Amino acid sequence: MQQVGQQARKAASEMAVATCAHKDAALRHIADQIEASSAELTQANALDLDAAETRGLDSAMLDRLRLTPERIAAMAEGCRQVAELPDPVGEISDMSYRPSGIQVGKMRVPLGVIGIIYESRPNVTVDAAILCIKSGNATVLRGGSEAAHSNQAIASCIAKGMHAAGLPTQAVQILKTTDRDAVGLMIRMPEYVDVIVPRGGKGLIERISREATVPVIKHLDGICHVYVDADADLAKAKSIAFNAKTHRYGVCNAMETLLVHQQVAAQFLPDLCAQYLTHGVELRGCDLTRELVNDDRLLAATDQDWGTEYLAAVLSIKVVADFASAIEHITTYSSAHTESIITENYTTARQFLRTVDSSSVMVNASTRFADGFEYGLGAEIGISTDKLHARGPVGLQGLTSEKYIVFGDGHIRV
Amino acid sequence: MQQVGQQARKAASEMAVATCAHKDAALRHIADQIEASSAELTQANALDLDAAETRGLDSAMLDRLRLTPERIAAMAEGCRQVAELPDPVGEISDMSYRPSGIQVGKMRVPLGVIGIIYESRPNVTVDAAILCIKSGNATVLRGGSEAAHSNQAIASCIAKGMHAAGLPTQAVQILKTTDRDAVGLMIRMPEYVDVIVPRGGKGLIERISREATVPVIKHLDGICHVYVDADADLAKAKSIAFNAKTHRYGVCNAMETLLVHQQVAAQFLPDLCAQYLTHGVELRGCDLTRELVNDDRLLAATDQDWGTEYLAAVLSIKVVADFASAIEHITTYSSAHTESIITENYTTARQFLRTVDSSSVMVNASTRFADGFEYGLGAEIGISTDKLHARGPVGLQGLTSEKYIVFGDGHIRV
Repeated sequence: MQQVGQQARKAASEMAVATCAHKDAALRHIADQIEASSAELTQANALDLDAAETRGLDSAMLDRLRLTPERIAAMAEGCRQVAELPDPVGEISDMSYRPSGIQVGKMRVPLGVIGIIYESRPNVTVDAAILCIKSGNATVLRGGSEAAHSNQAIASCIAKGMHAAGLPTQAVQILKTTDRDAVGLMIRMPEYVDVIVPRGGKGLIERISREATVPVIKHLDGICHVYVDADADLAKAKSIAFNAKTHRYGVCNAMETLLVHQQVAAQFLPDLCAQYLTHGVELRGCDLTRELVNDDRLLAATDQDWGTEYLAAVLSIKVVADFASAIEHITTYSSAHTESIITENYTTARQFLRTVDSSSVMVNASTRFADGFEYGLGAEIGISTDKLHARGPVGLQGLTSEKYIVFGDGHIRV
Repeated sequence: MQQVGQQARKAASEMAVATCAHKDAALRHIADQIEASSAELTQANALDLDAAETRGLDSAMLDRLRLTPERIAAMAEGCRQVAELPDPVGEISDMSYRPSGIQVGKMRVPLGVIGIIYESRPNVTVDAAILCIKSGNATVLRGGSEAAHSNQAIASCIAKGMHAAGLPTQAVQILKTTDRDAVGLMIRMPEYVDVIVPRGGKGLIERISREATVPVIKHLDGICHVYVDADADLAKAKSIAFNAKTHRYGVCNAMETLLVHQQVAAQFLPDLCAQYLTHGVELRGCDLTRELVNDDRLLAATDQDWGTEYLAAVLSIKVVADFASAIEHITTYSSAHTESIITENYTTARQFLRTVDSSSVMVNASTRFADGFEYGLGAEIGISTDKLHARGPVGLQGLTSEKYIVFGDGHIRV
């Protein structure tokens, strides 16, 4: 790992000054290589799939692991899309003259070496690598053992693409070893690694955060709330509440708890709940919800429900006395990922925006919009629930930092 | 510490929504309290000074500890200056409509609870507290035992000022205990503390960084370089090199190593060195420097010199073969704080700006400008040599984060 770190550090200094043209050329070459290597990728992936089946991995896991022709095409397309994005490196902003006569501003620069630790999906290998390349960083990728063959086949495409563009191949190192010790070393090499981005289950991320001496950009749960206010347009509320839960279940920006102001609960909940139940969503409500809806299929929510990220067709529902109770519930149980208020009231909307301390706070929109592509970042390496550095969807900018630059004409401090 | 943490977390949620008017009123009340308590502050400080003398602290330490009438007036003035700064909290930027129809942007928000660990200077107590108040954060301050009485007297002024403005007094908690265990607990309470800012010697900062589970904004050494290029205007170079070393010695943005391109070294160095020596600066040069200058007082630099932050009237000087050698020296020995190039060459200046990976990179200006006030931040809580989150001088903005905000009109993902 020491050697990997040294190589990454050296490559990072070359990547930091690589031109936009070179980096984009590399991304397009990688896309070509992926398309040209479709057969090899499928073959390598088959080895991983066989091993996974032998080990008895479940079907969801197998699905994440599988490289289909569509997924291979999507990986190549992803490379070309990132090539189209503007280069964040070297961007200068906020230049202004100071009373002393110096001109001060900021220049955007790469972070250096980014360590990415992830689990089974091989497309993460490409996504993560290309964002690091575009943002002028070097990266060390450590994927899951289930995807080892697929990842090495992808590594070969990336190396060829980098080589073709004249960029250092060691700017993207995909570890061959998948043993746990490698992770332990990687997260404790601040001299070689500037930041760790773990992608995977909560257990993985918690373990890494606890043990790392390198800073970690983390994404823990997505316990997202929609709060239907007394002044909500109930048609908008119904459509958003339904979308936020049912558009996709296994994603971090899906709503897990619906909060409804008591003034509108009787009018709002029965219809909506019927719609959820017809759609196969399991409902768990507070006492008042169950009274108002009066359907045997509506289960009783326990305290544990409010703090659970279901990532499934399950929703907890709570009727709240007022705005303050809604905020209190969110403050207590939210994972600070995304919350949305449905209201037509200007003052209430402003209060919600100011008070709720989550990475995305919305008014009259589905939580499902909390996403790098939807926000216009072009791509994302994850969604940060941290407050420092990057918060919310992390795109190219989240993989960079800013340094101060100063222009003088011989200026000295007096 | 558990209780301190809980109180801080609660106060932080109140501070986050405090209006600009309330926060500024608190700062002005604190200024009034400090002025009105001049006698009490001096008395408390005398107790600390007596104890320090008894314990045999050196005169530099005693000087840092001393509260003079001027320093007390400056603390009050600092409060009023921060009150004049614009409120960073709630600033909205980059709002734009996306193809989906949602409007997305960012809102600046406080970080939450900021832990500050520092050593003897009691004015840091006020500086740190007021920056945290203005940026809508709660803070837990842990000063050095030498300043315990002074800090408690200051704490009383702050509490009275907060109370007078109707803000929670527990938003600024100045720990009475000065034992080391308190620090150990504070840096390991991520549930209550969002970021730690250590201010003090390298030993303190390294220990905290190693042991903290809370993110740390750190400032290690300031080994700053001035590089005099072959195309430098030597009059500017002389004035800047002299200023960067001699304007103040014990500061992190003072130059510690002067690099000179060999083409101009013979013309440039003898005069400048004579000027330094007359001024009482001890010089340590490379072989070539000593040949060119030929003065017995010019000592031989050892390898250790290049990596030393003197914080004193000492300068190391090295003649380099070319631009690339200068960059290599900086990459090897710089602490990534501040570096300045002196050149009239457009291309060389651009290369230096792009290549040097320090928190401040300058052209034709003295490194002494690397400072929050000089950069127009209004105040600073420290200078970060980290890359993540805050880099360079950290002002109010560095104590905040941004969350995404989304406005819709009933928008759902399709």
